[in-house]
Amino acid sequence: MLSAAHEDPAYRLLAQHASGFMVSQVVFAATELGVFDLLAEAPGPLDAAAISAELGTSAHGTELLLDACVCLQLLESEGHGGRVLYRSTELARTYLARAGPKSQRNLLLYSAGTLYRFWGRLAQAVREGRNQHLEAFGVPAQPLFAAIYRSEAEQLRFMAALQEAWGVAGPGALSAFDLSRFPRICDLGGDFFRDPLPDADLFILARVLHDWADDACARLLRRVHRACPPGGAVLLLEAVLAEAEAGPGPLPALLLSLLLLLQTEGRARSASGLRRLVAAAGFREPELRGTGSVYTALLARKAAHARRGPSTPPPRFSSAARVRVPRGSRPHPDLPGTCVYFQEVVPSFGDSGILHLSFSARRREEAARRGRLLPSNRVSIRVSALGMFVTAASPRPR
Amino acid sequence: MLSAAHEDPAYRLLAQHASGFMVSQVVFAATELGVFDLLAEAPGPLDAAAISAELGTSAHGTELLLDACVCLQLLESEGHGGRVLYRSTELARTYLARAGPKSQRNLLLYSAGTLYRFWGRLAQAVREGRNQHLEAFGVPAQPLFAAIYRSEAEQLRFMAALQEAWGVAGPGALSAFDLSRFPRICDLGGDFFRDPLPDADLFILARVLHDWADDACARLLRRVHRACPPGGAVLLLEAVLAEAEAGPGPLPALLLSLLLLLQTEGRARSASGLRRLVAAAGFREPELRGTGSVYTALLARKAAHARRGPSTPPPRFSSAARVRVPRGSRPHPDLPGTCVYFQEVVPSFGDSGILHLSFSARRREEAARRGRLLPSNRVSIRVSALGMFVTAASPRPR
Repeated sequence: MLSAAHEDPAYRLLAQHASGFMVSQVVFAATELGVFDLLAEAPGPLDAAAISAELGTSAHGTELLLDACVCLQLLESEGHGGRVLYRSTELARTYLARAGPKSQRNLLLYSAGTLYRFWGRLAQAVREGRNQHLEAFGVPAQPLFAAIYRSEAEQLRFMAALQEAWGVAGPGALSAFDLSRFPRICDLGGDFFRDPLPDADLFILARVLHDWADDACARLLRRVHRACPPGGAVLLLEAVLAEAEAGPGPLPALLLSLLLLLQTEGRARSASGLRRLVAAAGFREPELRGTGSVYTALLARKAAHARRGPSTPPPRFSSAARVRVPRGSRPHPDLPGTCVYFQEVVPSFGDSGILHLSFSARRREEAARRGRLLPSNRVSIRVSALGMFVTAASPRPR
Repeated sequence: MLSAAHEDPAYRLLAQHASGFMVSQVVFAATELGVFDLLAEAPGPLDAAAISAELGTSAHGTELLLDACVCLQLLESEGHGGRVLYRSTELARTYLARAGPKSQRNLLLYSAGTLYRFWGRLAQAVREGRNQHLEAFGVPAQPLFAAIYRSEAEQLRFMAALQEAWGVAGPGALSAFDLSRFPRICDLGGDFFRDPLPDADLFILARVLHDWADDACARLLRRVHRACPPGGAVLLLEAVLAEAEAGPGPLPALLLSLLLLLQTEGRARSASGLRRLVAAAGFREPELRGTGSVYTALLARKAAHARRGPSTPPPRFSSAARVRVPRGSRPHPDLPGTCVYFQEVVPSFGDSGILHLSFSARRREEAARRGRLLPSNRVSIRVSALGMFVTAASPRPR
């Protein structure tokens, strides 16, 4: 292996890049084995022997893993009468333990089980310019979300991972603009290419466009524009690449775009690329704001005096939820920061329907079938704000 | 994915760890696709379209990969009349291009093809406390080096990778102590657990002990001590872990030790652990020195008045090379820094035998068989210094 201990700074930098996968796997393995759960719940610090005994893992391997976690600032250690004791850090209690307030556990397990394997095919994806579902997992690449879901367990984990990511990025994303002026907000989900869209004054497309090629995005945005009343708007939440003249970057958006190459039909876009897309669909005055995470918010309006085209079907309730913003919105008690929330949510498929709002592209018939697979006594859903704040789908994937 | 663009520094740190595998794969994919070779050889900077046309890769994927390489400081870019042009950095020309003076290309390809897969099984290795040859590659874990070599292509790539790593770490490792006082030096290789050891005043065990458990190390060191004349010495080159009371670290040695868990029967050890091993075998005055890389050098002597035990067989020439240090050793012209070198090397299997000195644990019979697989007209070997500086085994693995 290239080792980051070396005199030449250029070699050290390369070695750090080239051993990044080892660092990731330290985090993934410690998460999978339950290190962070055990230490978050333990009454005090534990030594490696106690931890390996509790987890049923080898003494030598556990000690190495714990020590690496200390070097990565995920755990802390102290000498105590000849023994080394390990304890959680604030980072681990917040983001790594299963019960942490912003736990990313499912996202890490999804990264370990699915994304790690996709990225092992990066060279081939760059060669071919297309996703690697067939090669990495033996499933046809279309329809796209059938490939991404691949199995019920995989779908549950994917949903849980997205929820966790959104739990961190969502509050900032939804407070970038004052949304309380839109009486009816639709967080667009379901089969939005085919199902009729519901009545709403604002359509949110959160991490939606990045899954699709330009022509599909244009088609979707035209549908949204037709469904939008005069004065209504669309809110995009997307990772945004720098403009070509500014030089390549930022790295997180580039890595996300490579992930989208490996796993979807889409890509990250620049601000001007997103502006072009919404403008071509008829929206005006696009405004961009940072949200404190990798996602940028873009709000664009439909002209107040625009008339619906004669071909627009009358809106009817569909697979997307209809939510109503109360007057005097205030922070949701479960969510940090200021964030609009919604008192009324009308999912289309009963209690479990809300799950499909943000995560499923399958059509209503399939969702109804899934309703039987996930009966309400197995799925406990609590709506915090929008569909995407759905939490605690039980049973949680392990 | 966890994205490193976020307000909370703790989340950013976690996201950086958790996306390390993506960063590694950017380096691996660009190496495999020939990006660094093309740009090192091009007369001037090229745009993404020219690079993708030359490499036969997709336009979109290539542009993303190039941009990510710029963010990782492996390439540079400049805007030029609306086009973005890419060119190599000094880092890429030195370490990444195939023809670079310290090219790590085979090591990166070995990391991408073999190590990446091993590390995907880290949780299981920590659980079981043993290597994952059977699970990762379907080969029995013993004999160890039969598993590590696994195929001729894999063996060639492994050897090339070790040579590249040693090309960077070797000069510092061999100049930590003045070795010119040892007339005959043996860089121990071959089947050193069974073959008779050659006559030598200094035995070098470079990255050897870390592959083996304590009892095997003790056995090997006792053999070396018996073969050593009074006043002779052993030189260990090993990644060294911090002592328990100093707290866990350093990270590069811990990652190496986890790699050794995944792939061998050994581990990295602390300085006191190494001192104990050589002392138990009869060596005295162990002295440790840093070498400017992850490897620490430990030199320990056999007492000048010690007598060989009666059970020691007379040394005879074996599968290890016998090398002679010339008087007035001076820097080797091909190697940076000051480094002893050797004018005479007597490999035991003709021209290709030297390959087995440092890298093969198979016995002489198998080596002879391999001699037919790699006849001398296919293998061109140039000995720079010791066996481990062997370079240019041709044909090079692709």
